[in-house]
Amino acid sequence: MVGYSITKEDYIKRLRRIEGQVRGLQRMVDEGTYCIDILTQISSTTNALQKVGLGLLDEHLHHCVKTAVSESDKAGNEKLDEAMTAIARLMKS
Amino acid sequence: MVGYSITKEDYIKRLRRIEGQVRGLQRMVDEGTYCIDILTQISSTTNALQKVGLGLLDEHLHHCVKTAVSESDKAGNEKLDEAMTAIARLMKS
Amino acid sequence: MVGYSITKEDYIKRLRRIEGQVRGLQRMVDEGTYCIDILTQISSTTNALQKVGLGLLDEHLHHCVKTAVSESDKAGNEKLDEAMTAIARLMKS
Amino acid sequence: MVGYSITKEDYIKRLRRIEGQVRGLQRMVDEGTYCIDILTQISSTTNALQKVGLGLLDEHLHHCVKTAVSESDKAGNEKLDEAMTAIARLMKS
Repeated sequence: MVGYSITKEDYIKRLRRIEGQVRGLQRMVDEGTYCIDILTQISSTTNALQKVGLGLLDEHLHHCVKTAVSESDKAGNEKLDEAMTAIARLMKS
Repeated sequence: MVGYSITKEDYIKRLRRIEGQVRGLQRMVDEGTYCIDILTQISSTTNALQKVGLGLLDEHLHHCVKTAVSESDKAGNEKLDEAMTAIARLMKS
Repeated sequence: MVGYSITKEDYIKRLRRIEGQVRGLQRMVDEGTYCIDILTQISSTTNALQKVGLGLLDEHLHHCVKTAVSESDKAGNEKLDEAMTAIARLMKS
Repeated sequence: MVGYSITKEDYIKRLRRIEGQVRGLQRMVDEGTYCIDILTQISSTTNALQKVGLGLLDEHLHHCVKTAVSESDKAGNEKLDEAMTAIARLMKS
């Protein structure tokens, strides 16, 4: 895997940090922090979330999808279609 | 404004909902929820965050930037450059 | 497949239309068309390009990657890593 | 300006290079180039297009929008709303 995949504990740790960033954003808005600084924090939070998404996708492809492809052509295609829909959605988000 | 701008309370309400979504993501990872469902939630969270970003940018342009432009050419240019940097960053996130 | 995949001829047809859009952009810049209208055309061209990218990715997963996964675990992993790198790049572009 | 803005001739030069990239993509598809290599070229073309978009937006803000803001509050707001719509569209493309 290309370095996106991490352990379950690491994902939760990362998501907890993201939760902290979102709470920080509430504080920033509440205290009237300068808009541009809030936007910087939003970009950084979004990037962190998308890295988590890429990690989960990487794992999904290396496990679920690979297993399905090994099982049968039909199962493989279904999992790949489902993954493509998720990829297209991530790309637009 | 094009409908992005909302009150401070609304921003905080939205960010609280996003915080809830991120906590939901932790639970999903912890409970071993199906990857694709987690990815759907990540896309939705990212979209919500970016909407908050667009709202703040909208307000920033309609207030800070407009005021600066009215003050002096130099002040206006500085604020616009700063906004452009934030826009480019949001676009890549 | 989720409807992204099309024939080679269709890809080329789409890319020719995109080439026409890019030539249209040159004309617009040259004639001093209103910036916002040029930006609308840029968004539409970028979207069209990304759809071509999703289509090619879809095919790649359903053919190359599936074949590699069926061949051996190592071959499958290599193709999946490579695909993940491309997905991450598309996501940031 | 933050370095996005360039002269009209430079924009056209850049767009011509992008047109060349799109023609290259047609050749790649036609010759059956490896999918991942085509996707790399698509990412690079999309990035180049978005840089042109950021440049035009930068200029638009520094000229049209600034002039409108100096003219009247109403004119300024209209231009800013219009710019926000374009920014939101670029962000999703």
